[in-house]
Amino acid sequence: MRKVNIGIIGFGNIGSGVVKILSGRKSLLAQKIETEIVIKKICDKDLAKKRDVSVDKALLTGDAYEIINDPAIDIVVELIGGINPAKDFILAALKKGKHVVTANKALLAEHGNELFLEAAERGKNIYFEASVGAGIPIIKAIKEGLVANKFDSIIGIVNGTSNYVLTQMTKEDCSFDNAIAQAKLKGFAEKDPTLDIQGIDSAHKLVLLTYLAFGRIVSLKDIYIEGIAQVSAADIAYAKELGYTIKLLAIAKKEGEELEVRVHPTLLPSEHMLAEVDGVFNAIYLSSDLAGELMFYGPGAGQLPAASAVVSDIVDLTQDIKAGLFRPTLNSRDDTSIKGLRKIEEFENKYYFRITAVDKPGVLAKISGILAKFGISIASVNQKEKLKSHIVPVVMVTHEVKEKNLRGALKMIDRLAEIKDKSVAIRIEGV
Amino acid sequence: MRKVNIGIIGFGNIGSGVVKILSGRKSLLAQKIETEIVIKKICDKDLAKKRDVSVDKALLTGDAYEIINDPAIDIVVELIGGINPAKDFILAALKKGKHVVTANKALLAEHGNELFLEAAERGKNIYFEASVGAGIPIIKAIKEGLVANKFDSIIGIVNGTSNYVLTQMTKEDCSFDNAIAQAKLKGFAEKDPTLDIQGIDSAHKLVLLTYLAFGRIVSLKDIYIEGIAQVSAADIAYAKELGYTIKLLAIAKKEGEELEVRVHPTLLPSEHMLAEVDGVFNAIYLSSDLAGELMFYGPGAGQLPAASAVVSDIVDLTQDIKAGLFRPTLNSRDDTSIKGLRKIEEFENKYYFRITAVDKPGVLAKISGILAKFGISIASVNQKEKLKSHIVPVVMVTHEVKEKNLRGALKMIDRLAEIKDKSVAIRIEGV
Repeated sequence: MRKVNIGIIGFGNIGSGVVKILSGRKSLLAQKIETEIVIKKICDKDLAKKRDVSVDKALLTGDAYEIINDPAIDIVVELIGGINPAKDFILAALKKGKHVVTANKALLAEHGNELFLEAAERGKNIYFEASVGAGIPIIKAIKEGLVANKFDSIIGIVNGTSNYVLTQMTKEDCSFDNAIAQAKLKGFAEKDPTLDIQGIDSAHKLVLLTYLAFGRIVSLKDIYIEGIAQVSAADIAYAKELGYTIKLLAIAKKEGEELEVRVHPTLLPSEHMLAEVDGVFNAIYLSSDLAGELMFYGPGAGQLPAASAVVSDIVDLTQDIKAGLFRPTLNSRDDTSIKGLRKIEEFENKYYFRITAVDKPGVLAKISGILAKFGISIASVNQKEKLKSHIVPVVMVTHEVKEKNLRGALKMIDRLAEIKDKSVAIRIEGV
Repeated sequence: MRKVNIGIIGFGNIGSGVVKILSGRKSLLAQKIETEIVIKKICDKDLAKKRDVSVDKALLTGDAYEIINDPAIDIVVELIGGINPAKDFILAALKKGKHVVTANKALLAEHGNELFLEAAERGKNIYFEASVGAGIPIIKAIKEGLVANKFDSIIGIVNGTSNYVLTQMTKEDCSFDNAIAQAKLKGFAEKDPTLDIQGIDSAHKLVLLTYLAFGRIVSLKDIYIEGIAQVSAADIAYAKELGYTIKLLAIAKKEGEELEVRVHPTLLPSEHMLAEVDGVFNAIYLSSDLAGELMFYGPGAGQLPAASAVVSDIVDLTQDIKAGLFRPTLNSRDDTSIKGLRKIEEFENKYYFRITAVDKPGVLAKISGILAKFGISIASVNQKEKLKSHIVPVVMVTHEVKEKNLRGALKMIDRLAEIKDKSVAIRIEGV
């Protein structure tokens, strides 16, 4: 039987999962693809560490270049994460004529242009199915399954940690701190969950989804990013009363000739499919012009889901290699109808906002006056129960309003003597 | 640029969609796959019919064999539906060395073994993405994206018409007849919706999903099939009170060494992702051993969604052809842990059932006695408001019970003098 040799750089959690699957499913895979996938070498900086899979010690090396420079290796699987030395390893592997599989969303988000260009020049592929939504085959779906489609928007719940936290806050009525503590206890959050909570991880994944759906790699600094640390139990409860669920969404959306790319907490109508995605699950919701509205749902993290995706990439590459020629990656071509990125100030959204005011006559009139001045029209107003004497939260939902107008109005409102706390504004989607 | 020639047999609704996409997206596709897809001939028995896409008249033929026998044609796209002559056309095309794309679930469900065998012998592929879930790339997901996975179950809402009817009955509290009438009015049901309503169309699709996930083509007669015509507004309402939503599910599930394959109305917990799939949408929910629980959601029918899937198959075949050799279809291999199909009598389920009884002392005792006799234990009992004097519906939910026991009990219950209407039993899933 034909053999394809692979080298794995990074023998951590996902790396161990890949080794497990490739050995446990050896015959299944061989039957399906008529190819034996041979692990020729595994590199890790810590070879002494105990792992949940055992391998022939002769396969192990501490030097990644033993893999990169091995002419017998066809595919390099990079699973160490982080920017460097992962980037150097991948570039070196491409230069040595190897295909690459990686799960490294941060690297691809920050240096994708350079890496994909190098791969194209070398006639090699970089596959990265595990980098978004773990085992959900979303990348293959966009690239191949929906190959003829153009996209209007792609909206994802792509960070399990923050979705778990918001779900706990919503379903168990607990505080943000409490939810984070639970997430850590259950292993759903890292010791330092900053990247997840602040929306950076979601933004990394959004860069990749935007690339696939719209054909361009946007820079992280061009993405409007807002995390979930400011979402309060009160806002979740008020949103629920209004028929909404708060989710951290990663959004890429065509608006006329511009593309909006943003990550922020969002009120979704509670009956929206994405609003039902709970806990550490991820989902990607696509609006395509031919296949319509689609959603792909599954666990967004975990050793075996991620390793399942890595193995599917390896299998695809064995097929590419079998073809004996460069098989185009079917990466999306630039959507030329898009002229540029929309600036945050120009975003238009409906808004939920909550104002904490002194309960006395005339306050609402002042607020309404300011809103009117900024051309903001209100869909609903709810004055809530007093928090303490004379302090009441007022919850409003607006019609579509430009971000800059909303910001201007809130700034002016927050300067009123009657306002006792910074006002909160959260965007509404999907209505 | 390299060219791949295709011939389309069947210039109806989906066929026109395929022609539209291939002409409208010609340059997009050419860019992505570095191949020009050329429509060399289109066959239909009615060439005079007005269509929503215009083509060069010289391409049209009334004779399918002008396509099948044309040595320049690489791919035959069969879109006429039905068993014959579609089967003859596909077999003839394979014998002539052509790859085949089809959306014909009925044909594949009934003659898949013969067709796939012929394709394998000829070193050709039959692709059929459009046959389940229209534009949802579910077949590619199972075959390729989840290539290393084994499956415990695959549960689908795969018939838009019946899902629309059940959704209307659930959300609008309307009757079955009323919902069907609305579905016809909106074009969501055929004039004669029997195949949809009776679960036959779902069963056809289940054959294909079972083949992909478990590697075997089950015969339609081995599938337990129950349609939705017996689902009443009352059962939908009572189910809702109990926290369930009724859906027509197509289920293939491993139970020990046996496989259960069935289509029937089912109570799902209302918070289950599948319970949220409304209207003409379809969704396929997979339990895989590596990637976990996944769901794929989208429109289950329609010209462009189906044509989007057909085009993705054509694109995949252009890649296969480029490889210059037979690229294995990655069709699932037999799951050898499965020893046989489970007989319906041996199915084990929780059950909802509704009994219509005379409201007098001792009736419940008699019923409970019969249930106990058959070893059926009850999770909940609710006596509903009287329908008319002395007649009350009693709704029960059981713990897990074998189908044969439930049937035996119901038969005996229905013979009681106090029972005034045939009892209704509906299976419960996902709890």
